Amino acid sequence: MLKPGDRIGILGGGQLARMLALAAAPLGLDCHVYCPDEASPAFQVAARSTVAAYDDEAALAAFAADVAVVTYEFENVPAATAAFLSARVPVLPGPNALATTQDRLAEKDFVNAIGLSTPAYRAVDSLADLERAAAELGRPSVLKTRRFGYDGKGQAMVRPGVDLAEAWNAIGMQPAILEAFVPFEREVSVVAARGADGTVAAFDVCENVHRHHILALTTVPAALGPEASRVAVEHAARIATKLDYVGVLAVEMFALAEDGRERILVNEIAPRVHNSGHWTIEGAETSQFEQHVRAIAGWPLGSPARLGRIEMRNLVGDEAAGWLDMLRDGHAHLHLYGKAEARAGRKMGHVTRVLRG
Amino acid sequence: MLKPGDRIGILGGGQLARMLALAAAPLGLDCHVYCPDEASPAFQVAARSTVAAYDDEAALAAFAADVAVVTYEFENVPAATAAFLSARVPVLPGPNALATTQDRLAEKDFVNAIGLSTPAYRAVDSLADLERAAAELGRPSVLKTRRFGYDGKGQAMVRPGVDLAEAWNAIGMQPAILEAFVPFEREVSVVAARGADGTVAAFDVCENVHRHHILALTTVPAALGPEASRVAVEHAARIATKLDYVGVLAVEMFALAEDGRERILVNEIAPRVHNSGHWTIEGAETSQFEQHVRAIAGWPLGSPARLGRIEMRNLVGDEAAGWLDMLRDGHAHLHLYGKAEARAGRKMGHVTRVLRG
Repeated sequence: MLKPGDRIGILGGGQLARMLALAAAPLGLDCHVYCPDEASPAFQVAARSTVAAYDDEAALAAFAADVAVVTYEFENVPAATAAFLSARVPVLPGPNALATTQDRLAEKDFVNAIGLSTPAYRAVDSLADLERAAAELGRPSVLKTRRFGYDGKGQAMVRPGVDLAEAWNAIGMQPAILEAFVPFEREVSVVAARGADGTVAAFDVCENVHRHHILALTTVPAALGPEASRVAVEHAARIATKLDYVGVLAVEMFALAEDGRERILVNEIAPRVHNSGHWTIEGAETSQFEQHVRAIAGWPLGSPARLGRIEMRNLVGDEAAGWLDMLRDGHAHLHLYGKAEARAGRKMGHVTRVLRG
Repeated sequence: MLKPGDRIGILGGGQLARMLALAAAPLGLDCHVYCPDEASPAFQVAARSTVAAYDDEAALAAFAADVAVVTYEFENVPAATAAFLSARVPVLPGPNALATTQDRLAEKDFVNAIGLSTPAYRAVDSLADLERAAAELGRPSVLKTRRFGYDGKGQAMVRPGVDLAEAWNAIGMQPAILEAFVPFEREVSVVAARGADGTVAAFDVCENVHRHHILALTTVPAALGPEASRVAVEHAARIATKLDYVGVLAVEMFALAEDGRERILVNEIAPRVHNSGHWTIEGAETSQFEQHVRAIAGWPLGSPARLGRIEMRNLVGDEAAGWLDMLRDGHAHLHLYGKAEARAGRKMGHVTRVLRG
């Protein structure tokens, strides 16, 4: 168990690491951020920084020696990095969670193995695999690389008429899966924390709207019936428990209308704090960032109670240019991530509104 | 007007500077903390730090060149430091507010000059002055140095039987005031922000309990009638306006019962964020720290609406040792300031509870 004054190591220096560091400080914990990019937003609020590659063993060893626990803000931490650090200092969530969630095939196999459902999928390691899978799952379907995909990268839609060889080329002929297209009613997510003692505290179900594969809008509560909401939360809790997870995770799910009932399919697991949970900073009694810090510190979790109806909008690319208008709405909570350059598709900030009472 | 990516300079590196920096970051603003003490808690969350004396002109010039605005977390910024910086970069709140509030005599003269009331007081520059003042104001009364007093330091009670020469010695024979003792019902404070455009946004009236001259407990709303609450808020707004103030200030007041009515006397003005406003982090729609940042940035203020009934307890000295029990109450918001050593009388953290609904 950590104690106040201890230091947390964070791999990755983006906005998630930045908000983790901002949540650790009030608990009396310092952060040491490790990121290859010297312009990382999290460096600005961290007690210590290391700018080094994830395979720089000297830098990793010094980092491990400086911190009481290591966590990360992205799921693509190289396995060798996680293993190197784990030999020296606790890494939470554990390498098992990383290994499962880094690989879309392993992740979907895991989800089905614990009794939950995903869209139908097939492993694709060759064009021949892809041809067979497309014949079995039909079109449209989605070809996704097993590793390193995010925000729609490493994906190709297989619509009627699409040439399979072209799709296979488009994703770089990497190990992949083909996933049946799901005619979902809505995309939802559950952000949940699991403590070192096995306690799970889930936030209410979020409803998410993506634009160009990037989260645009989260509203809470999701427009699900009570039974589907209960099921969604249970799914996240079961996943966290079966992974023996410590920290915050997010489970993205599809809600389908089937025979007049709502059905929940698991889409993706993010072994980290999640964009759809940013509203918890003002909208929940304890934020996802504080929950994650409490969990990896071995501390009791806080209350995840929601404090109102929530609307969280991402500021992507030049949308952050409207910051002054957003500040004029004294009830809007503006968050800017301190990124110098507003490139298209780059998450620059978010705005949360909590409708109370 | 500042823009996201600009840097704020903060004089002083204690918990107030730390919480200011934590509030500036989500608004996309960096902080540069300047403090002579290299173990300053605010350094851990600031983008840049300077460890130097407040009269180190080379360090001050470099600091001024690095930031878009300078603010401070304590009212005893040397006048020469404020003047040196003001010649190079905006200093907010302005040097006028500093000069008035650094000196108990000037402060009380100012408060009375703008039509508000204080306890009766006399200037004391010699033992002869003290003898005359004690005769006029009676006993008990309180002898206070004009400058550099805080948390009860630089004060001596003049009770019946106290030798005046001893009291004069006890405060170092410095320029002082003698203040009539006020049989107050309660101590209250109003924390308010004034924007660059003159808008004032006050938080609800706080009721404060001190122990050994150090704030122990703040509850909000204060147990005042609506008329006295209105008057207290108006006092703070008038003081902010008459000082042409930009930023957050706190006005400490005494509430007296006189002829069945509540009367408000101004005790002290703090030209900065204030301990009795720490509850605003979770208990108000916008925190005092964010309000201060918005004000000195030239930005619109946020809503000061209160979100529930408030109880904020300071953790002084070894009271912070109970941190784990406090974390077990998932509804308590624990704040630890990152101070290594828990000396007696040292503010180590605070805990806020917001009773909603």
